[in-house]
Amino acid sequence: MIKSESKLRVRYGETDQMGYVYYGVYAQYYEVGRVDAMRQLGFSYKDVEAKGILMPVVEFIVNYKKPAFYDDEITIITYIKKKPEGLKIIFDYECYNSQKELLNTGKVTLVCLDKLTQKMVKLPNWFNKALSSFFK
Amino acid sequence: MIKSESKLRVRYGETDQMGYVYYGVYAQYYEVGRVDAMRQLGFSYKDVEAKGILMPVVEFIVNYKKPAFYDDEITIITYIKKKPEGLKIIFDYECYNSQKELLNTGKVTLVCLDKLTQKMVKLPNWFNKALSSFFK
Amino acid sequence: MIKSESKLRVRYGETDQMGYVYYGVYAQYYEVGRVDAMRQLGFSYKDVEAKGILMPVVEFIVNYKKPAFYDDEITIITYIKKKPEGLKIIFDYECYNSQKELLNTGKVTLVCLDKLTQKMVKLPNWFNKALSSFFK
Amino acid sequence: MIKSESKLRVRYGETDQMGYVYYGVYAQYYEVGRVDAMRQLGFSYKDVEAKGILMPVVEFIVNYKKPAFYDDEITIITYIKKKPEGLKIIFDYECYNSQKELLNTGKVTLVCLDKLTQKMVKLPNWFNKALSSFFK
Repeated sequence: MIKSESKLRVRYGETDQMGYVYYGVYAQYYEVGRVDAMRQLGFSYKDVEAKGILMPVVEFIVNYKKPAFYDDEITIITYIKKKPEGLKIIFDYECYNSQKELLNTGKVTLVCLDKLTQKMVKLPNWFNKALSSFFK
Repeated sequence: MIKSESKLRVRYGETDQMGYVYYGVYAQYYEVGRVDAMRQLGFSYKDVEAKGILMPVVEFIVNYKKPAFYDDEITIITYIKKKPEGLKIIFDYECYNSQKELLNTGKVTLVCLDKLTQKMVKLPNWFNKALSSFFK
Repeated sequence: MIKSESKLRVRYGETDQMGYVYYGVYAQYYEVGRVDAMRQLGFSYKDVEAKGILMPVVEFIVNYKKPAFYDDEITIITYIKKKPEGLKIIFDYECYNSQKELLNTGKVTLVCLDKLTQKMVKLPNWFNKALSSFFK
Repeated sequence: MIKSESKLRVRYGETDQMGYVYYGVYAQYYEVGRVDAMRQLGFSYKDVEAKGILMPVVEFIVNYKKPAFYDDEITIITYIKKKPEGLKIIFDYECYNSQKELLNTGKVTLVCLDKLTQKMVKLPNWFNKALSSFFK
């Protein structure tokens, strides 16, 4: 399993007039978590694109329990719980506020595209190799 | 059933370096659809808040089939497929581009909060009444 | 002179906890105005990029007079007041709400880049030609 | 003079199809800088609002020199260069990438509003007092 922890502070522009972090903003928060999780593999998502692979999202799910507020420090726990098989890689999420209250849980599923052909491809070997040390 | 159709044009700032509409932007697109669907009930979401009810999102799901691109005209079809029972109201979505290709489907579940107490409450009577003419 | 008028409705996610449209959102609103102004020239900004020209912003100024609120219908008036000379093209803006109150004025200055070399270039001839019928 | 330094990493959703950080995103980056600068005064912007004062932006200027890219670490230097007199408080900005290249400079002018009356008011005494130790 891969597990990473990311921290960020809620920006003013991320709140809405309800006084909550806008529900769509978690797409960005989860992305921050995902990028941090990936760095544990020894490369960044930027490197992935530099090697000609795009990783668009094919499924995005959030279950909201409690709102986050302006200036809160948010902790995003990101998991890759099982070794990707086939074409998809799944990230699971938990967001907490600084009182350690669970704000939401979520799941993001990505696939790999060849940047030039824009066709779906399998996870490259170098990516699988980096993953394999985490899943025995 | 309630069904509405909303159109919008993809803004430059909504794209990412993949050249696609960023996956989190659909939270806003779906919100546009939701607000239009609600207007069919004879009031706006703004009116709902003015009457002391907030409607935060408790679940958000998107299944992405194809990307949208800059300057595309997007059609958002929003449905309330069944009369809300209990505390939740569910909106279903389909997004299409101008070639009528299905871009994604999704689901957003909302609840009602009392603005003052921030406690969950049942859908107000005036809301249910407006809904009932659509669900016999 | 080129003058265009664009209308859009404030989205919930564009508000902040002050209840106002977040000050940074006008970058997107002005972009909507700019794209509409450009269509009068007989091409879209998308066409400009397809021809190998990028037009990044080099200066962005907004003077805020009054806030915009959720669900307001905003009118953006966009001007190209004088024929671009040299490397820059300047768009001037006025935003109004539906009560015709002036919300803000602004100015956005763009330059042209060659997409491949990422170097600054002069406004292409076909662009100048399209402009010239508006400035005699 | 007050001077603060903030660091943040460019998120994927902040880029546009040009591959640059979208020009409007700096409103958020500058806000992050502003909030950090304010913490030096011994309170947060959140505290300011809790005391019944809103601080909306009345002028926003950015001069862009170079683009920022995905995953870049951005340093935002925020200044309050002179003691606010009258109704306005001015923040000056410089943004750098990790190669210490100047990306842009900017200026944001804020005013104080009474939250209840929504009228402009002078900077409160406790705010002025906190500022005064920085400007002798």
